[in-house]
Amino acid sequence: MGTILIKQAQIMTMNAENAVFYGDVLIDGDRIKQLGSELRIPAERVIEAKGKVLLPGFVQTHIHLCQTLFRGRADDLELLDWLKQRIWPLEAAHDEESVYYSAMLGIGELIRSGTTTILDMETVHHTESAFRAIAETGLRAISGKVMMDHGEEVPAALRERTDTSIQQSVDLLEKWNGYANGRIQYAFSPRFVISCTERLLKEVRDLSAHYDVKVHTHAAENRGEIAHVAQERGMRNVVYLDHIGLASPRLILAHCVWLNEEEKQIIRRRGVKVSHCPGSNLKLASGIAQVPELLGMHVHVGLGADGAPCNNNLDMFQEMRLSAFLQKVTHGPTMMNAKTVLRMATLGGAEVLGLQKEIGSIEPGKKADLILLDLNDFHAYPSYEADPFSRVVYSATRGDVDTVMIDGRIVMEQKELKTIDRSTVLRESDRAIKRLLSKL
Amino acid sequence: MGTILIKQAQIMTMNAENAVFYGDVLIDGDRIKQLGSELRIPAERVIEAKGKVLLPGFVQTHIHLCQTLFRGRADDLELLDWLKQRIWPLEAAHDEESVYYSAMLGIGELIRSGTTTILDMETVHHTESAFRAIAETGLRAISGKVMMDHGEEVPAALRERTDTSIQQSVDLLEKWNGYANGRIQYAFSPRFVISCTERLLKEVRDLSAHYDVKVHTHAAENRGEIAHVAQERGMRNVVYLDHIGLASPRLILAHCVWLNEEEKQIIRRRGVKVSHCPGSNLKLASGIAQVPELLGMHVHVGLGADGAPCNNNLDMFQEMRLSAFLQKVTHGPTMMNAKTVLRMATLGGAEVLGLQKEIGSIEPGKKADLILLDLNDFHAYPSYEADPFSRVVYSATRGDVDTVMIDGRIVMEQKELKTIDRSTVLRESDRAIKRLLSKL
Repeated sequence: MGTILIKQAQIMTMNAENAVFYGDVLIDGDRIKQLGSELRIPAERVIEAKGKVLLPGFVQTHIHLCQTLFRGRADDLELLDWLKQRIWPLEAAHDEESVYYSAMLGIGELIRSGTTTILDMETVHHTESAFRAIAETGLRAISGKVMMDHGEEVPAALRERTDTSIQQSVDLLEKWNGYANGRIQYAFSPRFVISCTERLLKEVRDLSAHYDVKVHTHAAENRGEIAHVAQERGMRNVVYLDHIGLASPRLILAHCVWLNEEEKQIIRRRGVKVSHCPGSNLKLASGIAQVPELLGMHVHVGLGADGAPCNNNLDMFQEMRLSAFLQKVTHGPTMMNAKTVLRMATLGGAEVLGLQKEIGSIEPGKKADLILLDLNDFHAYPSYEADPFSRVVYSATRGDVDTVMIDGRIVMEQKELKTIDRSTVLRESDRAIKRLLSKL
Repeated sequence: MGTILIKQAQIMTMNAENAVFYGDVLIDGDRIKQLGSELRIPAERVIEAKGKVLLPGFVQTHIHLCQTLFRGRADDLELLDWLKQRIWPLEAAHDEESVYYSAMLGIGELIRSGTTTILDMETVHHTESAFRAIAETGLRAISGKVMMDHGEEVPAALRERTDTSIQQSVDLLEKWNGYANGRIQYAFSPRFVISCTERLLKEVRDLSAHYDVKVHTHAAENRGEIAHVAQERGMRNVVYLDHIGLASPRLILAHCVWLNEEEKQIIRRRGVKVSHCPGSNLKLASGIAQVPELLGMHVHVGLGADGAPCNNNLDMFQEMRLSAFLQKVTHGPTMMNAKTVLRMATLGGAEVLGLQKEIGSIEPGKKADLILLDLNDFHAYPSYEADPFSRVVYSATRGDVDTVMIDGRIVMEQKELKTIDRSTVLRESDRAIKRLLSKL
């Protein structure tokens, strides 16, 4: 990788001042070297971006790549039914190849719609396949195998022994954490309290401190889940996580729809991070998270599409629109303006993942994770003196993403993917889901 | 226009049985002549549609083409502020050319995202420009000039004398109703009770009966609006419309977010039609309409994106997703399944417009208003034994629309518009909004 010069873009830096200007960006290797209104610097490669918008790549803080194959197989169900009737049996049927193509299908969708970094939760087995897909495609990801050593309703093929779950997690961590120039990291991923023993959660607490890696889990998504935790562990979901010492700045909680005051204070006080998944929360009828209140408490909140079967897209543009619209209807029309939402989708997500020094904004020294949007179409016009934040959050769609760069590498150029063969992935994803469905 | 044969599509008929099959459709002139699994009939033109999905074109039951130019100029405001501070001054600044390009911009977006029929409300002046754009582009539309003869806060340039408003409406009706093979129709369009005298509304009641045309207005969108009507007319919004005799099967009410029991019963009993605009209702913080209840009462409900400045798209895929997701989070995950939503977006919309015998489903004898979707991409895969309704409602996006036919005429083919020159419309829309903003 040498130098790349992106010329004459409208650059939305997402820096501390939310600066937007027309100019050039010089990339050297995997990092942004220089910004300027007109850089007269020779570069090995020049990308003419006149009329296009340059943004930091989107950061999604809650994704299940292993579920992409299940898109459309679990519609119109509530969380616990959705898990027990559809998702767990399908996850249990997964094989090495199906996990790989599930990840490839999801990554193809993610890159095409401008997401360059994800926090991902895999299934119990075959997690290597997902890491392989991430490594090959060039996506930036923190991922881990799901941990499930408890719960009578968990299918036998997914129910783990505690020691095995921990050992396999550590083995994966040691192999993949920091892989590919640090582009890939490991996170311990206990599914949720319902499916984990206290012993497992406490081991995860100690191991995540030892290795200094994230813990990625679900919490306070659904009222049934909360009642189940309360009955079994004798306290509210987040209170329990704090009680056993898991609440720390390394902990990332997906959903957090139903938090009481005490839980919000725990999250704030312990520096716990929150991943807001508005599409999933609506489709599974989970509820509407109190995002403005969390942001007001200076809690770091990112956005995620969750898995394909509960969304049914992995599209940050959809999640941005929803995250704004839902808070307006509950808190009034000035709540969650476009700027707030776009920060959540970029630097906010980076902060959730602890990567704010590396990604999330266009600034010298940061990783070159960049997307170019072509908004020269009816749905994003007029362009005259248009507010760029409104345009990206309220008008743009996935089809507007033109070029995507991750870690300085161009993974999509003029809507053509460079690291994924679409026809192979579409064909093999059909073959894989057919095989899994035949096993049920 | 001669015969066109569409071959080997997955045909979602949206007929009474919601039949879906793989086969061919023969079009003769402006109408569908025949469906079959393999039609061996010579045609002047053959469209190979293998691997694509054929649907009736979407029907949007509430649009303001004249506002498309204002996209992004009125974000993060509540309805009455939004109108008084931004939309009315901009509408007052409109000229003949700006109304034309506003309509062209909106129609370009609508056709590209699969909408073939709209119910449209224009502004006070220059409505001919919008009809000209509709006529030229080939869109199917019911439209009318807005009527505003009351209200102190209405800008002088929009405030009409009652007689003038009525005379201009009738003149437009006599020229445009039934134009272009019946593709264009006229609807009386009093803006809402707040901006109309009782005399005007009563004249509209009589004239709409005399000419047998629709009456298109806003009602029960916002709590401030309802309080205003109650204070001025002494009763609830829909009760008042019924009280003055306007509630009939010809009346189409946009929004209906805040209906009490009496108003719902009036709508049901009088055969009034409802246009649900979930995107607009969220962005303007209006609320969430009780659509499942209205559908349960056999009220005809259609979907509409409303105007570009309150959405900020005119995209039926966005409205479909939202209409499903919002009811799930309020009524549970099985509410508003994909089939229900897709009916609302097609035949349901046609019923709202009284066009159910002509459009809204793929059946012999109906108008050839058809769209082909190409879902061969990551975000709509796997395709193996996929539920087509889920795929279209929960996964598809505007970029998947490949070809659009209205009244037997191909207006977009392989994503290329045939009746609109994009670069001219984009350039002129920027010039027009610049001119309007300079007048404010």
